[in-house]
Parts: sequence; C-alpha cells; structure tokens
Amino acid sequence: MPPPISLGLDFGTESVRAILVDANGTQLAIATSEYVHGQITERLPGRTELLPPRYALQSPGDWIDSATKATRDAIASAGISPSGILGIGVDFTSCTMLPTTRTGKPLCELDAFKNIPLAWPKLWKHHGALDQTERLNRIARQRNESFLRRYGGTIGLEWFFPKMLETIEEAPEVAKAAEVWLEAGDWFVWQLVGGPAETLTRSTCQAGYKAMWSATEGYPSSDFCDAVHPELARAVAECLPGMMRSPGERAGLLSSSMAERLGLLEGTPVSTAIIDAHSAVPGVGAAEPGTLVMVLGTSSCHMLNSKVLAEVPGVAGIVDGGILPGMFGYETGQAAVGDAFAWLRRLLGLETFDAIASAARRLPPGANGVLCLDWMNGCRTPLMDGGLRGAFTGLGLEHGPEHLYRALMEASAFGLRWIVELLRDGGVAIDRLVATGGLPHHNRDIVEVYADVLGLDIEIHPSTQGPAVGAAVLGMMVAGPKISGFQSVIEAAKAMASAPEGKQDIVRARPDRTLLYNPLYQNYRRLAAHTANPQSTT
Amino acid sequence: MPPPISLGLDFGTESVRAILVDANGTQLAIATSEYVHGQITERLPGRTELLPPRYALQSPGDWIDSATKATRDAIASAGISPSGILGIGVDFTSCTMLPTTRTGKPLCELDAFKNIPLAWPKLWKHHGALDQTERLNRIARQRNESFLRRYGGTIGLEWFFPKMLETIEEAPEVAKAAEVWLEAGDWFVWQLVGGPAETLTRSTCQAGYKAMWSATEGYPSSDFCDAVHPELARAVAECLPGMMRSPGERAGLLSSSMAERLGLLEGTPVSTAIIDAHSAVPGVGAAEPGTLVMVLGTSSCHMLNSKVLAEVPGVAGIVDGGILPGMFGYETGQAAVGDAFAWLRRLLGLETFDAIASAARRLPPGANGVLCLDWMNGCRTPLMDGGLRGAFTGLGLEHGPEHLYRALMEASAFGLRWIVELLRDGGVAIDRLVATGGLPHHNRDIVEVYADVLGLDIEIHPSTQGPAVGAAVLGMMVAGPKISGFQSVIEAAKAMASAPEGKQDIVRARPDRTLLYNPLYQNYRRLAAHTANPQSTT
Repeated sequence: MPPPISLGLDFGTESVRAILVDANGTQLAIATSEYVHGQITERLPGRTELLPPRYALQSPGDWIDSATKATRDAIASAGISPSGILGIGVDFTSCTMLPTTRTGKPLCELDAFKNIPLAWPKLWKHHGALDQTERLNRIARQRNESFLRRYGGTIGLEWFFPKMLETIEEAPEVAKAAEVWLEAGDWFVWQLVGGPAETLTRSTCQAGYKAMWSATEGYPSSDFCDAVHPELARAVAECLPGMMRSPGERAGLLSSSMAERLGLLEGTPVSTAIIDAHSAVPGVGAAEPGTLVMVLGTSSCHMLNSKVLAEVPGVAGIVDGGILPGMFGYETGQAAVGDAFAWLRRLLGLETFDAIASAARRLPPGANGVLCLDWMNGCRTPLMDGGLRGAFTGLGLEHGPEHLYRALMEASAFGLRWIVELLRDGGVAIDRLVATGGLPHHNRDIVEVYADVLGLDIEIHPSTQGPAVGAAVLGMMVAGPKISGFQSVIEAAKAMASAPEGKQDIVRARPDRTLLYNPLYQNYRRLAAHTANPQSTT
Repeated sequence: MPPPISLGLDFGTESVRAILVDANGTQLAIATSEYVHGQITERLPGRTELLPPRYALQSPGDWIDSATKATRDAIASAGISPSGILGIGVDFTSCTMLPTTRTGKPLCELDAFKNIPLAWPKLWKHHGALDQTERLNRIARQRNESFLRRYGGTIGLEWFFPKMLETIEEAPEVAKAAEVWLEAGDWFVWQLVGGPAETLTRSTCQAGYKAMWSATEGYPSSDFCDAVHPELARAVAECLPGMMRSPGERAGLLSSSMAERLGLLEGTPVSTAIIDAHSAVPGVGAAEPGTLVMVLGTSSCHMLNSKVLAEVPGVAGIVDGGILPGMFGYETGQAAVGDAFAWLRRLLGLETFDAIASAARRLPPGANGVLCLDWMNGCRTPLMDGGLRGAFTGLGLEHGPEHLYRALMEASAFGLRWIVELLRDGGVAIDRLVATGGLPHHNRDIVEVYADVLGLDIEIHPSTQGPAVGAAVLGMMVAGPKISGFQSVIEAAKAMASAPEGKQDIVRARPDRTLLYNPLYQNYRRLAAHTANPQSTT
C-alpha cells in the first residue's frame, strides 16, 4: 500500500500553493495559482475611485478560485487518485481578516456593501488603522491590561482589533451588518467544512498572535473594549463565534460541495488553520521544543516552541498551543530584512550586490567602523515600534558601498542576537537554529554573519516551501495516527519535512569572529538605545 | 598715469596661480602653473621605494619653477611692463613646512638627505604624525598648557609641532642637520627677499594658527617641549629664527637674483605670507570686522576678524593680527564639505547630483526624517577630533538618494550654525556672511540651505580666485599708501576685491524654513553629542 498523502494549501500574499506530500516526505507535486485581483491597493474591482493610502485588500473569491485551480493542478501533476489524499492543512497570511454574515458570506460579496472598501477583507499589510492602534494602545496602557504583557507591551498596527475598530469607526454601516468577524484562514477552513457559525473553528495561532486571545483569559475584556468603543464591546461579545483549536487539531470534514469543487473526497479531515510563517516550524521538520525556526524573507519571523511559559519582555507573542498543540509558541521578528537589503541595493544604484559581495566578505567584523541599525521598517522585537527608523553611523570618506552592505548584514545579525539573548535570559532554551525562507538560499553570506555574531551554528533548510510543507504535515496529523502512523506532530514533521540526509547545509560559527563581534554588538545596542530615546543624550 | 598693479602668488596643493590686479580691482591677467611633482605621496622623485601610508610631500624646486612660469605668463598675458608692478603678495597652503640650512637651502636638496622622505617638505595634508600628535596633546593637557585654550583644547594632526616632532623621532639625522624649520610660505618669501636667517620674516598667520605661537606668549614653553622630547626643546630654541609680522606687513624687498628670475624689478616690496584660506578674507573684499568669510571647498574654512579678543571654547585658532594687521583673527572649519558630497555621490552610484537635485530641493526641511552628521572626515570646529565619523539616521524603506543628499546639505548647514552660535555666544559679533570658494558656484542649493538653517542672508562672492586676489591686496598694501592710495587693508580690499556693482548674489534666508529648522538643529546637536560620546547613552 502506498504511503498516505496530505494536501497542504499555502495562502500567500499574491497566490496560493498546493502541495502533495506523503508520509515519507516525498513531495509528489506542487502547483501555484495567482489571485486574479492580487493585492487590491488602488481601486476596488470594477471601480474607478482610488482607495485611501495604506489600504491593502483582497477578494475572498480569489482564495476559493485559486485554491481550486492549484489543488486540481497538483493532483493532475502528481498523477494520483484523490482517494489517496487523507488530510488537508491550511496556512494563511495573518492578520488577514473579514466581516461575514452568519452563514459565512463575505459582506463584500453583497450588493449593498460591494462598493465599500472596508467591507472587503483587509490584507495583513493593510495599514489603515494608525489612529485606532494608537488609541487601543493608550487605553490598554492606562488600564494596565494584562494581555499587554504577552505582547511586549504593544498592540500591532496589523492586528485583528485595530482592523475591526477601523471598520467600526470608518464604515459603521459595515460594522453594523457584520455578523461574524474572522481571520481569512479560519474563514477558508469554515468554507471547507461548512456548518453553523457557532461551531466554526478558530485557530489559537491567529487568535493568540493577532487578536490578543489567550486560553486562560480569552479576548480582551468587555470593560476594556467598552472603554475603547461601545461598538467594539458589542462586536467582540456577539460577532466572534466559534471554537478555539490548535493548528494540527481537526476542524471538521470536507463538505460535499467543496469536495466536488476541489476534486477531493467528501469527509477528508481538515486541520485548523495556521499562520503562514508559523507553518514553517513543522514545515522544516523542526517541531520539537528548543528549535528556533527563522523564516528569513522581506521581513523575518523567528519562532520557537517551548514546554516553558515565561513572560519575556519585548517578545510580542507567547501563545499556549499557538504554533503546535501542547507547547507554548514564542513569536519574534525583525521588520525589515530582505526589504532592507533591496532598499540599500537600490539606494546604492546597484542592480545586484554581486559586484561588492566579495569586497564585503573580505572586510573584518565591524566593516571598518561602519555600524548600522536595521530599523528601516521599524523595530518589531523587542521594541514593537513600527515608527522607529534605521541608521548608518561611523561613516567616513574611506568607506564605500561594500561597507554599508556588510554593516547591514551585521545589523541584521545583531538584531537577531538581541532576540536570542532576550529569550534565553527570559528562561526559554534555544538548542538549535534552523533558517528557512527565500533569503538564505540566495544569500549565504548573511547566514554566515548571523552564525558568527550569534556564536551558534545555523542549519539552512534546503526547502523553500516550508509553510506549504508545514500545512501538509498538519493535514497528515488530522488523518489520525492509525492512518498516518504518527503519534505526534514532532514525529510527523521529522518524517515529512526534515532536510534529506546529505542535504543538510550547516553554517558553522567561527569563534574568533564571535569574539570580535561581542563589543560591536554592544555598540549596536547603544545605538539602538539612543535611537529609541534620543532625548536621553544631552 | 595707470593705476598701480600688484602681483598675487597663490600656492595651492597642485599648482601656483599668479594674478595681476590693479588698485581699481581690474584683474589684468591670471596664469597657472602645475607643480612638476605635484603631491609626492607614493615615491620620492627618482626612487622606487614606496613611501609609508599617509605621507604627502612636495618639492621646493617646484614652487620656484612654477611661480616663475606663472608670473612670466601673467605679465606677458597682461601685456604690461614689470615696472608697473609695485608690490607682491604670497599666500600658501599651511601647515606645509620644511627643514633648511642657515642659508635657506632645503635639506632635501642636499645629496646627504635627498633620499630621506622626512627631509622633504611635508604638505599640509601629510598625516604621518598620528603618534606625535596624540602625545603632544596628552602632555599639553596634563600640564594644562595655556596655549591649548586658544585652539579649542586640541593640537591638530596637520600642524607645525607634530610635523617637526615626527622628523625628530623618525629621522633624527634630518632633525640634527636642520638649522631652520619654517612654513613653506615663509620660506618662499625668504627666497624672494634674501638675507640672513635671523631676519627672515615669519607670518603671524601661519605661526598663530599652526605653530601655537601668540604675540604675548610666543611658542610653547621650553619646559613643555622638553617634557615632550629634549630635541624638540632644542629645535624650538635654536631653529626657529626670524621676526614675526602680520600678512600685509612688509617682509622685505625683492632681491636682484629673484627679480631677474621672475622677470620683475629688484626692490619691489614683498608682503609677509598668509595662509591660502585666510587670504580669501581680503580676497573677497571682506576685511572689515564682523564679516564671516566662508571658503567652501572640499573642506570649509570660516574666518572672522574682530576687534574683540574672546576665548571661545572649541574655536581652534584665535590669533592677534593672524589674518590681517590690527584685528583678532578667528578661524573655524568643517573638515568635509565638497569632499563629503563627492563621497556621497560615489556611494550612491551617481555621476552627478543633477538627476536627484530637483527632488532634493522639493523635500521639506528635515528630508522626511533623515538626519545626517557631516563628520565623514572628523569634526574640526568645535570638537577638533579628526577621528570622529559621520552618520545618517532616521533611515526608512521610504527614503531614496535624494533624502540622503538633502540631509547632507542640512547637516553641513547645521555644522555651520553650531560655529556661528559658538562665536556669537562667545561674544564675537557676526554681521555679514560672505561665501566663496568653488562650491557656492556649482551648487547654489547648498547655500540656500545654509541661509535657511542660519536664518541669515549669505552673499556669494562672484570670484573663484579669492585667495589669489587676497594675496594681490596684501601686495598692494606693502607698496605703501603713497603709491597705492589706500590707508588700510579694509579700504584696499573693498576697492580691489568687492563684488562688482550688479554682480552681487545674495541668498536670502526664508523665515518660515528657519522656524522648521530650529528643532531639527537640536536633533543634529543631540546626534553629535551621542556620536562624540556614545557611552553616555545606556
């Protein structure tokens, strides 16, 4: 009998990927389908009016259409029968969220609301809620709300409550009509399995990291919400129906209508959704506690599972079962990584870094005195302040583009070291580092600088499909141990997603360099302190 | 009778310019001659061994040869008789200095020493005396030497004593043979007028700004010199013969041999030398007290004459008669201006700033949050620390090259504002600002930013030959009032070097912008404070 197969559906910002992976880790097929409307940032489909600045919306129809196409393409490409697919996992960008009716119909698909931008799903990067975020934070701090401690003291601009409050204030008719507010990942899973709103499955991952929910305290209190806006209190009380489950726990079984549409079997088990970045944790075979999984892309997300709950100041999200069942998930991040490199490359008038990469490599640690602060898109962990900005210091006439490039690599590494020290000092063990995402594959130099600055070896996972494979691992989990043969997600991840023997790429830390970096890291911390609070110097 | 004519000889880093100007300010001719050996930074003439790093030497023969050629070319081009030339002025780079015999023969022209690099004249930018400068400063501070107060507390790397001490320590055989140590400008004037070493004329300008000399205290004390090195004490006691005079005071009369060589009349009066930058003060017709003359080039030198002696902390040189007779000369500077712009342009991969100049011009004050510190070659006034380095802060993904360009212009203006405030707060009046040098003529934008940041109008002098014209003004002074018709250097400068009527270019400060710049200037000062002392932030 062939090994069981799982389908992973990975919803990104521009497209969805469908991947078929069997219990041995063989990737049978992968297919991608772009969203017809992509990111909606200028005009609603069919309209001429320009959207306000900072808007980024999506179309729910695109998610269904693209998932259908990608799934059917993957099955055709693998040449398998749908009956071999025994579980489905879903990862999604987050917080991408939308208002629907009690039956799950997106408001933007109703004639009454289709021309109102805030009735449409807000993509994770929609930044319309600047005022609302500021007010939520101010009131939460005034009231010393306990949830703040789990998020390093700050509610993020891209999270669920700011986006909900923005609609309440800017499009009250939409807010009034919204019967259900939910994450797009949860919405898609609900579409797959059907059923009434009361029993829809919400992911502890999305709720815990983006909606200030915790297993012990639930959502922010009605008193807090009322102090912000009475309508927010009502919406939280009435419009967040459903049941909380961890990713890898079963959300339900595929409905007949969706089975027909996707070309799958009715009754196939479906996993609770997971945030795309978090899906990389099982997706690189690193589901065990103590492994920091670093998804290095335009921004970076560093995730860690632990058996220990520690309130680490500055760590934005600590969620029980937030990444995988039975463990505390710690999420940290750096707001600009690949983005910052692309920005610097353009600033220096370069097509690529190739021309200066070897010169940058030959420079000693410290780039001959140039120090960079990598906050070109704000500081995520630990300061959680998107308004902060970056710097280059120590600049002299003797410096060229290669010094700035190297300094930016080092700054990114110093930012990561700060995070690692923060977690360890907070009592959370880190035994192993695994890098994934696009960046390590086209820039090994940066991973070398990371390893040297940290003084720790870093494994580069060979796959660039971590989140999609992670979704497939979760899909396999919900098939159940009898079918999958796996007793735990740790076991499934190891079997389905580890780097194949002989394909491990381990970047070794060089202790002589680490010694040189130690004082430079202190300079970085001083520059960060001054930048975060310039008034402290007189 | 035609108006009297003066010859100005302007010794730059690469060439000498000879200019003929009459008492009405008509420039009859200008001729330039490059030094055959230019800057000697790699090998001594005729040798294959490489010089050590940071060396920059010159050949005294080049000065004589180039001055001869330029003078003869200028006279021929003007079509005048040498008998019409009634005075000679000389300005020179400084501190460019050399060791000679009692008769003025440069040691590098003796067979015994011609292959020893430190026997050659050290150009102003020769930076071989790092260790010596550090030690001179340390001992001067330990002893709380009074001369330090006149120089903002710091002896400069490029000055006379560090260069002398470097030779004493690194080439003791040269130091032992040196019978006279002197500035190149003083040496050239000595060559023109001849006479014994005892009566050679030294310029209060060079001695005051570069050799820690003052009219009341003389050179640093023998005790101090002895504490540094016994040989230094001996050299100062025995090898600095001559008489101190201000620029514009007569050094002597042209000797017959030099008259023949240059094609001039024997007995033509010769002025005491002046530093090239300082020569711009009379050279732009701004010899009256209270006018800040800003020579904006690769670096910038800001000079001010005042009737008032005030010890302004951080102002590197305050010299009685140091620029012109009868006034206190205040010298301040910014270490990188044109140099910093050229560096940034190369860093950004641009051929010129043209493509981004208009975008930079349209940006609001503050360059959308980007702040620059213009210390790419250290900070001259007020911190006198060549080891400090510059910065860009507030950098975000939203910024492009135009933001950095504008931020650098603003930083340069903030640095100037710091100097102006320092002088005014110290009790030295500034009534008028005149900009000269190469930069204002090819980048008016920067002068506009200067005016707005300062809240003061700035006159751009139309001539780019300020130092050469200034030398001619000094030459006219030594012709005497009967011949020149001028009772004072202020009068001569106004007549010979003012911007012609209708050619004045006054850049007006815009008060609305000045208001916006005020808080940004405070940000600059905070960044400067942090950079000068990063440990102060924790």
